[in-house]
Amino acid sequence: MADYQAMWKDLGMDLETHDQLCAVLPMAFGDTYLTQENRPEGMAFYDFVVSEIHGVRPAELIELQKQGGKVFGTFCVFVPDEVVVACGGAVTGLCGGSQFWVPEGEKVLPSGMCPLIKASLGAHFGKTCPYFSVADMYVGETTCDGKKKAYEILGADKETYVMDIPQMKRPKDFVAWKDEIALFAEKVEEVTGNTLTEESLAEAIRLINEKRRALARVFEARKADPVPISGKDALLMMQIAFFDDPKRCAEMANKLADELEERIERGEGVVPAGTKRILITGTPLAIPNWKLHHLIETSGAVVVCEEMCTGTRYFENEVAEDAASLDGMFQALSDRYMQNNCACFTPNPGRIEDVVRMAKEYRADGVIDANLKFCTLYDVEKTSLADALAEEGIPCLGLETDYADNDAEQLRTRIGAFIEMLDA
Amino acid sequence: MADYQAMWKDLGMDLETHDQLCAVLPMAFGDTYLTQENRPEGMAFYDFVVSEIHGVRPAELIELQKQGGKVFGTFCVFVPDEVVVACGGAVTGLCGGSQFWVPEGEKVLPSGMCPLIKASLGAHFGKTCPYFSVADMYVGETTCDGKKKAYEILGADKETYVMDIPQMKRPKDFVAWKDEIALFAEKVEEVTGNTLTEESLAEAIRLINEKRRALARVFEARKADPVPISGKDALLMMQIAFFDDPKRCAEMANKLADELEERIERGEGVVPAGTKRILITGTPLAIPNWKLHHLIETSGAVVVCEEMCTGTRYFENEVAEDAASLDGMFQALSDRYMQNNCACFTPNPGRIEDVVRMAKEYRADGVIDANLKFCTLYDVEKTSLADALAEEGIPCLGLETDYADNDAEQLRTRIGAFIEMLDA
Repeated sequence: MADYQAMWKDLGMDLETHDQLCAVLPMAFGDTYLTQENRPEGMAFYDFVVSEIHGVRPAELIELQKQGGKVFGTFCVFVPDEVVVACGGAVTGLCGGSQFWVPEGEKVLPSGMCPLIKASLGAHFGKTCPYFSVADMYVGETTCDGKKKAYEILGADKETYVMDIPQMKRPKDFVAWKDEIALFAEKVEEVTGNTLTEESLAEAIRLINEKRRALARVFEARKADPVPISGKDALLMMQIAFFDDPKRCAEMANKLADELEERIERGEGVVPAGTKRILITGTPLAIPNWKLHHLIETSGAVVVCEEMCTGTRYFENEVAEDAASLDGMFQALSDRYMQNNCACFTPNPGRIEDVVRMAKEYRADGVIDANLKFCTLYDVEKTSLADALAEEGIPCLGLETDYADNDAEQLRTRIGAFIEMLDA
Repeated sequence: MADYQAMWKDLGMDLETHDQLCAVLPMAFGDTYLTQENRPEGMAFYDFVVSEIHGVRPAELIELQKQGGKVFGTFCVFVPDEVVVACGGAVTGLCGGSQFWVPEGEKVLPSGMCPLIKASLGAHFGKTCPYFSVADMYVGETTCDGKKKAYEILGADKETYVMDIPQMKRPKDFVAWKDEIALFAEKVEEVTGNTLTEESLAEAIRLINEKRRALARVFEARKADPVPISGKDALLMMQIAFFDDPKRCAEMANKLADELEERIERGEGVVPAGTKRILITGTPLAIPNWKLHHLIETSGAVVVCEEMCTGTRYFENEVAEDAASLDGMFQALSDRYMQNNCACFTPNPGRIEDVVRMAKEYRADGVIDANLKFCTLYDVEKTSLADALAEEGIPCLGLETDYADNDAEQLRTRIGAFIEMLDA
């Protein structure tokens, strides 16, 4: 691993605490990932990225900044990357997937909040995440009470622009979100110093669509039985997609998809045909949150689809490419992003339809509906989702967890019993 | 107490369970309220209303329905009563302030939600609240994740119309809320079968403003030292205001205010001059939630103001009466309602300014910032509020509680220590 200490110091990070994180991550990754058999060769790229997760990409972002580019740290799949890319900026995901950051977050937030939000603020305030440190500004959204209010605390420390997402999906809400995108574009123009043009936005739309299609190809391959890639590996690809350069992201996903398609042709899988297949839905699984996938895939089943923000919602639905005016493109962006069936919407029947549809498309034997503790939005949807799945005869297991390890054995027992039931 | 059994039966209520509630409420009220000394005579009306809380007003609403009127059950101070009143409908608050309803609510909602929401759904599904039973429909709003999603469950059982409240207060959000009010008006016209006219809406605006002014007079009197009314009694008036006919509400509040003003002239109070004065802020205190007021006022202090929805936010700011068109009136309504500094907004500096201002106006010696468990919105604002009060030299005690009684002694200790500190 290259020496990034000087870079981290320049970023104002807390080197001593950050070293503790760097010391444990490789072992966690090794235990979870490198023990898998017959992994696709295309995963070597993602393994490399993880091995330098806080080094290689932040260094690229710093290079961009040296050339005058700006870095926008985002928390949510509703923020339209296209606008930033069109203005020569870069979008990066932010840390938030480890218990490591939670105690620091609890210094500024109530403990009764979801671990994703606490970890995010902990990573920022603890100065142990280079993506938080390198970002010129953050972009939030009003998708849930916790994030909405947490941005107020974050914004007091570094510029945070918040987009107001409509809470419903009436025709006027699609226009309201278009207006929010247009306002955001003004902000991005101001911060980057670049003017958005029809040409640059159209090109960015094509680029991000290409990335979506590449990720979708990998997911498409997961519909095969035997499945040519583990759920853990597919999840890793998705998690890294949030941080990577979109062009390289598309290239690497396409390369991986090529390999998976060859495997399918050969009838080759990472697990035997007939292995019980799980679709997982619920709150996002930010890197390095591999807990549930690891439990499922070491209990005799395989994860074939993630119906969540770190999954299908990130790439499903493309932005229409036929708009000529900026206003038309903003509307096309809104129309695509508003198809996301986040539990922040009321009502949200689309998510239930998605889960049922995908359970069939991905030939899932069962669904695990997992949400992070204190996420009210997904928690309340649990019942209606379970009812809909029961009606379709698709078994469903509802789980609630956080980033701590102390429920791992209890979860293993419940997941094991669920898979056993599927086998029966 | 009159016999309302037949009426409750006609409403489809669960008589046996409801009887259990009716058996305990008078004792709780007696212990909390009737033990107070030197209460204003004007409180007799409110005592009577409590004694028949599930009888006399529901009977009036049934009478209205017999004459073709419609009853709208609401959960929030953002719903513009004016529109309903202008169409000949009645607005009523709904049950949600007692632990009695919580277990039933937990059958349909996650336990990790605020007791107000759980109690509300418990009262509906348990059929133990005549206001829920009598309402022709419910009107919700997207003020928090918990309510937003709970309305989906409620709406599957009885028609529930949800208004989408903007999450910010930019100029365009004032227009967006006007549009929501206009849409709501269409719904109310449809349900009532009555057409909204400039005349009827202008008259309703005047009526509700009158009610606001009357309630404000009572609060104005609370600024005096010695204070002429207990916090418990003022809270009761506010709680009942949500259920009462607006005209009678204004009359009774004005009558009470007359008496309080006479008391002030005579220098008469319910506690000695110099008694430590508390402003309470935070989540709403729905009837019969008198827990914190009772603890404070039996610990040597007196509550002089509630900066909350069951307090100043219900009556502060009048709707401008100079608009001539319906659209102008909708905008005037929006402009008034959007001045409410609910924690659902981001950012929400107005609430902090309100608390500081009111602490001075009401000559509070200290502020108690109390929120219901699992209310993320108010929980996150605690730190910034405490910081702002510290800067002003106003002592602040942050509390978190729910409807259960098992924290009463712990709360009494903390509240007692806080008041003792104010005395020092």
